[in-house]
Amino acid sequence: MLSAQDFKGVYGILPTPATDGADRWDATDTVDLDETARLTEKLIADGCSGLLALGTTGECATLTGDEFEAFADCLLSTVGKRVPVLVGATTLGTHETVRRLRFLRDRGADGTMLGLPMWQPCSEQQAVKFYASISEAFPDMAIMVYANPHAFRFSFPVSFWGAVAEAAPTVTSAKFANPASYLECLAASRSKINFLPIDSMALAFAQQSPDAMTASWATAACMGPQPCVALMKAIDAKDFDLARDITKDIAWANETFIPGGNVEEFGKFNLQLEKIRFQESGYCRPGPIRPPYDIVPDEYAEGARECGRRWSEMVKKYTSTGVRQ
Amino acid sequence: MLSAQDFKGVYGILPTPATDGADRWDATDTVDLDETARLTEKLIADGCSGLLALGTTGECATLTGDEFEAFADCLLSTVGKRVPVLVGATTLGTHETVRRLRFLRDRGADGTMLGLPMWQPCSEQQAVKFYASISEAFPDMAIMVYANPHAFRFSFPVSFWGAVAEAAPTVTSAKFANPASYLECLAASRSKINFLPIDSMALAFAQQSPDAMTASWATAACMGPQPCVALMKAIDAKDFDLARDITKDIAWANETFIPGGNVEEFGKFNLQLEKIRFQESGYCRPGPIRPPYDIVPDEYAEGARECGRRWSEMVKKYTSTGVRQ
Amino acid sequence: MLSAQDFKGVYGILPTPATDGADRWDATDTVDLDETARLTEKLIADGCSGLLALGTTGECATLTGDEFEAFADCLLSTVGKRVPVLVGATTLGTHETVRRLRFLRDRGADGTMLGLPMWQPCSEQQAVKFYASISEAFPDMAIMVYANPHAFRFSFPVSFWGAVAEAAPTVTSAKFANPASYLECLAASRSKINFLPIDSMALAFAQQSPDAMTASWATAACMGPQPCVALMKAIDAKDFDLARDITKDIAWANETFIPGGNVEEFGKFNLQLEKIRFQESGYCRPGPIRPPYDIVPDEYAEGARECGRRWSEMVKKYTSTGVRQ
Amino acid sequence: MLSAQDFKGVYGILPTPATDGADRWDATDTVDLDETARLTEKLIADGCSGLLALGTTGECATLTGDEFEAFADCLLSTVGKRVPVLVGATTLGTHETVRRLRFLRDRGADGTMLGLPMWQPCSEQQAVKFYASISEAFPDMAIMVYANPHAFRFSFPVSFWGAVAEAAPTVTSAKFANPASYLECLAASRSKINFLPIDSMALAFAQQSPDAMTASWATAACMGPQPCVALMKAIDAKDFDLARDITKDIAWANETFIPGGNVEEFGKFNLQLEKIRFQESGYCRPGPIRPPYDIVPDEYAEGARECGRRWSEMVKKYTSTGVRQ
Repeated sequence: MLSAQDFKGVYGILPTPATDGADRWDATDTVDLDETARLTEKLIADGCSGLLALGTTGECATLTGDEFEAFADCLLSTVGKRVPVLVGATTLGTHETVRRLRFLRDRGADGTMLGLPMWQPCSEQQAVKFYASISEAFPDMAIMVYANPHAFRFSFPVSFWGAVAEAAPTVTSAKFANPASYLECLAASRSKINFLPIDSMALAFAQQSPDAMTASWATAACMGPQPCVALMKAIDAKDFDLARDITKDIAWANETFIPGGNVEEFGKFNLQLEKIRFQESGYCRPGPIRPPYDIVPDEYAEGARECGRRWSEMVKKYTSTGVRQ
Repeated sequence: MLSAQDFKGVYGILPTPATDGADRWDATDTVDLDETARLTEKLIADGCSGLLALGTTGECATLTGDEFEAFADCLLSTVGKRVPVLVGATTLGTHETVRRLRFLRDRGADGTMLGLPMWQPCSEQQAVKFYASISEAFPDMAIMVYANPHAFRFSFPVSFWGAVAEAAPTVTSAKFANPASYLECLAASRSKINFLPIDSMALAFAQQSPDAMTASWATAACMGPQPCVALMKAIDAKDFDLARDITKDIAWANETFIPGGNVEEFGKFNLQLEKIRFQESGYCRPGPIRPPYDIVPDEYAEGARECGRRWSEMVKKYTSTGVRQ
Repeated sequence: MLSAQDFKGVYGILPTPATDGADRWDATDTVDLDETARLTEKLIADGCSGLLALGTTGECATLTGDEFEAFADCLLSTVGKRVPVLVGATTLGTHETVRRLRFLRDRGADGTMLGLPMWQPCSEQQAVKFYASISEAFPDMAIMVYANPHAFRFSFPVSFWGAVAEAAPTVTSAKFANPASYLECLAASRSKINFLPIDSMALAFAQQSPDAMTASWATAACMGPQPCVALMKAIDAKDFDLARDITKDIAWANETFIPGGNVEEFGKFNLQLEKIRFQESGYCRPGPIRPPYDIVPDEYAEGARECGRRWSEMVKKYTSTGVRQ
Repeated sequence: MLSAQDFKGVYGILPTPATDGADRWDATDTVDLDETARLTEKLIADGCSGLLALGTTGECATLTGDEFEAFADCLLSTVGKRVPVLVGATTLGTHETVRRLRFLRDRGADGTMLGLPMWQPCSEQQAVKFYASISEAFPDMAIMVYANPHAFRFSFPVSFWGAVAEAAPTVTSAKFANPASYLECLAASRSKINFLPIDSMALAFAQQSPDAMTASWATAACMGPQPCVALMKAIDAKDFDLARDITKDIAWANETFIPGGNVEEFGKFNLQLEKIRFQESGYCRPGPIRPPYDIVPDEYAEGARECGRRWSEMVKKYTSTGVRQ
């Protein structure tokens, strides 16, 4: 099973590509399997060390059960164990999550990226018990905690990481976004959990703990993972001057992505904006947004498109100049 | 189709009775169908004019797809069109909601009690469009908007009711809890929507608009609907002194139910507390709570049990003294 | 000292009238004392049974210490003990509140309308202790708890009212806005506290407990208190049909006041909107809004002006037709 | 006037030392001026490059006007222009803030650390206009924006920094805590604003932009500023290995300070916990906590005391081993 120490490099986050008309209420069977396979191959070829799927950007919320199975099956058989894959199984309850995880285990997923059931906001005790149950149920699958405080209305405090590391031994990583408490969370987990930062924060995490920061996640990978891969290589080589230059390039590309820089506002439209910037970059074809989340203010959408254009331009630099070598 | 004017009397809200062991992570097929049928008959016999199912208390969040179908099928065939039934189909996305509604329509449900998809908090535009889509998809099924601001992180403002009444003609009722804006919401909907209050607020709503307040909802019905039925009869007969006495009895029974009177705190444990008070009252057998929401602080649970005992005692008064006649 | 039972009729809420230029950052000495005296006389003449001042609408937040004293002195000497007056002394800390209350006591205020210090959101224990301290400090002044959950980030739960009634014997009333928990709060306080509703909710409260609901508060009084006074007389006479008609008139006048019916949004601009509707009604001259709260979206302002116009029209009905007699 | 480029080294944040009995509601004249002068001298002697006062930790919320003046006068005359001093003048309104700033200017303060008036949560437009007004009023005093999103219920988004840098030319620094948007905020301000991080995040900021990160703030300075000073020297010398070791020492000392690592919970008790750890460290005598914020759960207090003990132990290392040289 994937331990904390096994996570390396860039974990690209895939959308669930949608067929034409997927934004209609009467659409069924909306997964574009050809694009799923094509994008999966491309991400591996362009340097992703691992893949994450069926989180917010993967529209886990709006797939039917059949679509979930169709997508996961295509993804896992395309990868064929070449790189680790963690597939989301977040639902509103434990039983449905268990049902989906049985499917994923049987298809060979290495693990799952798993958020909290969100009908009620969970207490810390509930949250720990939830992950402990899943850990007991699937002792061979790694759990990456999907630690998004806005989506799940749970602050994922330091004490949670201590408790979950103890009660749920298969929790070995986290999709994480809180640099201010990185060292405390790492200590609380007794290094059993690898707290993966987003690409743009990888250097800041590395400076706090170069040994522990071995991998990052990137939704941006679906506009071309090359800058993220170059960044992780620079950090791995302790070339912090180069890492800083790449981080600045990424910040420039992302400048218009978060509406007004307001993270709470972004959380109301994040999946829409991700799909829009992917589409604009030309790297993949995510297709229409599934309802009811298919609405976004025009000016926010334009910020995402500008991000897609800038990222696409930046990718050229990281493929032509030999920075990757 | 059920119009706003068709809602009368007490709409009892059912739990989804659970079999022993339903609180285990490996439970499957957890619906207690015998108890479902028994409780349904009892609620009709004891005076409910309509039934609501598969909301928060009905554990809509934690049923698998198969369990959803088994419960709904049993409920609808037991009722056999004797009273209106609205069954929940709230999910995280439009497509799965549509899939469930097709099943409900085919089994003869009169309508659906429908909350908002909650992965992202909806903007007003998204919320209106969501109900409009469902209305277009099922022009013969009545929608009761499940207007719970805490659960859905949406304030259901006055302007929403005006817009949804216009865009979604099958929205003819709301499970509603905001007496302060009752008249404004009613006016905004141009009386196309019946805003049903909870039993304990029915008199306060009636005083604001006796013509419009024709029906209330009651989760408490599953401890015995008799006091709620007596209350609605008193209000219908314009006997406000009697209605006030009954309202006070209900307030006494509920005194220990909301932890510290704090509605936000209640929202973190509402389904647990509902099932606990049902169980204690002896009126039905809701069974174990499905995970992961099966945790609740002891002192909160004791408040719910005290409520169950008081309600049970109060029911005796309303069945023996002839108040109901 | 004013006990819970002493509160009767309509408590009008005054603004702190401002001189020209009060919205400039370099303004000093901004209280329009002539208008303060004129409005005070008018409110008493037109039927207010009591007065409240220096809450949100009274711009307690933006007055300097000298302005606080000048306004309070003018108000209290104008009233001359003809009706009860409760003056706000909410500040960010206990010591400054004590200092202001000494001034008010020496000038003859009957009590104070007092919110919570808001630098940190208070725990229940802090909130109770705060009121207990003030009660110990001023055993002869009645405290009206200014129970605004949005402003003070405190939910004022039922358990708070039980504890504060015990620990702070001079707390005998509350400016209250939560009809859903009215009976529970009343019971928790063992009827030691009079929970005054806003004018528009007075009938709904009265129906829940006609004996306890003896007085209401009204910021709308500063557009003319006559409809509010007529309403309280109808309720007092148990003429609920008339009370309902007046409540509907008030709802019509208020229809455009709360932006989109969204109370949270209103809370960001409430004092601005109050002053704007007062000004438009012509009943008083509140003057400019003191900075930094002198900004409000245009469409919200227009809703407030429409409210002022409608209220002004409604007042004519209640002064010419003899409804008040 | 202090420009963004003028901020260097460690800005220590002072409490406002309190005399015995300052936690009583009837206390007056609570500032311990001897300790104020003693601590000020000590912080300068031990390496602070600048001082900040009268923020949350300085109990700006609970001082009376006279106490504000007594403290500020003592602080400024003790410093005598040896290091820059920015003194808080956050109040609930513009006029009182202007009044306090006149006093500070006349006593020689270099600038002010200034939060937002908090009666209503400010819109971005209000927030920008507020700082613009103060900038116009005091063109020779530097403003450090006190960017605490929890206290002021304002998210201080990227767009705010762009607008305020334009509209308020004296805003040249910010007490800042958001590493995730550091580069974006810096770019938005066109480098006119120095975004000072807390000591524990200084290295992470420096890695993102070594040129821009020239100074940090530290409440921990009042337990002994030596580790913070050593850290800033290491960063200035580009000795990132040493900087990382010091950062780890600081993280160890702080391990028990934030209750459960939950920043929101910390925000309810921050000033109490700061004063408790100062007291335990023995470095200064902050004295009792002024009401009503003088309540804190026992286990939180113990975490703060442990932090004080650890910090005190750590200080020995940084004074005895020559690390500072």
